[in-house]
Amino acid sequence: MIELVGLDADDTLWHNEPLYTQRRERFRELLARYEPAGVLDDHLYEVELRNLQHFGYGVKGFVLSMIETAIEITGGRLESADVRTIIDWGRDMLASPTELLDGVCEAIETLGQQFPMVLVTKGDLLDQQSKLARSGLARHFKGIEIVSEKTARVYRTVMTRYGVAPERFVMVGNSLRSDILPATEAGAHAVYVPYEMTWVHERVPPEALADIHYHEIPHMRDLPAVLARLDPP
Amino acid sequence: MIELVGLDADDTLWHNEPLYTQRRERFRELLARYEPAGVLDDHLYEVELRNLQHFGYGVKGFVLSMIETAIEITGGRLESADVRTIIDWGRDMLASPTELLDGVCEAIETLGQQFPMVLVTKGDLLDQQSKLARSGLARHFKGIEIVSEKTARVYRTVMTRYGVAPERFVMVGNSLRSDILPATEAGAHAVYVPYEMTWVHERVPPEALADIHYHEIPHMRDLPAVLARLDPP
Repeated sequence: MIELVGLDADDTLWHNEPLYTQRRERFRELLARYEPAGVLDDHLYEVELRNLQHFGYGVKGFVLSMIETAIEITGGRLESADVRTIIDWGRDMLASPTELLDGVCEAIETLGQQFPMVLVTKGDLLDQQSKLARSGLARHFKGIEIVSEKTARVYRTVMTRYGVAPERFVMVGNSLRSDILPATEAGAHAVYVPYEMTWVHERVPPEALADIHYHEIPHMRDLPAVLARLDPP
Repeated sequence: MIELVGLDADDTLWHNEPLYTQRRERFRELLARYEPAGVLDDHLYEVELRNLQHFGYGVKGFVLSMIETAIEITGGRLESADVRTIIDWGRDMLASPTELLDGVCEAIETLGQQFPMVLVTKGDLLDQQSKLARSGLARHFKGIEIVSEKTARVYRTVMTRYGVAPERFVMVGNSLRSDILPATEAGAHAVYVPYEMTWVHERVPPEALADIHYHEIPHMRDLPAVLARLDPP
């Protein structure tokens, strides 16, 4: 018997990773004037990882990491016009339209009539609130939990806050690392909806999934049917 | 009868504005190599205000605004080593020790035995969580509400979330604009504890306070006594 459905936001409800992938591509083009492009992607990812503990997830940290990477890659020859361009990208990303994944609107409408739902997402506070507001989906959600990391402990805190036992909670998302593994570790159900692309940081080795029980569906439009099986009338 | 005490964090529980003031001073020194310093403070504040809607409150937005201001002020002559220095300041600010205001530790210990308390703060999610963890005060709080703006609507949402009526809630903080005015507008009690310095954005004109009823205390150590008067045994 499911009493609360937790939904991830980025790349579960709306497209997000393509925004980052597009900027990485333009970042590569921007730096091609200074340096051969070979090591760039690895370098940017290293700086992003190094900065996660300071800046957290989201656009602002990504922008700061791009600037740092560019300064390092160019050995300090980076022109300030290019720094400005990178900051402009950040503002553009934050102002990008929230594009729902195909079928999400209908799935959320249907689910909203059956279950209380809460959004559980990482990222910058203002950015995620703004995306939810622009998505048109906000009215379906009982709450929005923006968290700095998704661990089993964080999921336990969310369940406690909404007064729901783990076996009555299901987490739905596109990240095995952030949505599926920690939610199941906390004793909850989990439904994995893979997205077309995954940031390397969110990937997990196959052996990490060996003893994990979760459901996988190809598409958000299959979610009501899966939850109906978890929650027989 | 008070059922929940809301406490602001920055410059109410721990020192924060001095971190920004110090960096503004060093920013002025850094740019003195390029430009006469006259218009710098106003320019930085304009960029910060312009960016608030995109980047929100907190260190990361402040860093991005300093970089933009520096590029604008220097007409693009800013060297990337100086960009790097500004980003390093951001990491330093985020890693700064959380220094409690004098008397806060005792006041919170005392209050924690009498009232459930919730932290209500603006700023970057990860930064505020990390400061609370490092403050040693986390165990006294029933919850932490990190919000992108402090409006009457936001205070109403917080009160609803904790199931408390406005006349049973009191908000305590150092900002008339963010803590006192919107909390009283939402029907709650408010206790103003001025800090030694106030960011210009948080100031309000005296006439805005004309019909507002709130308590003012010089020091957090006076808070238990004020709340005892609001909440007679």
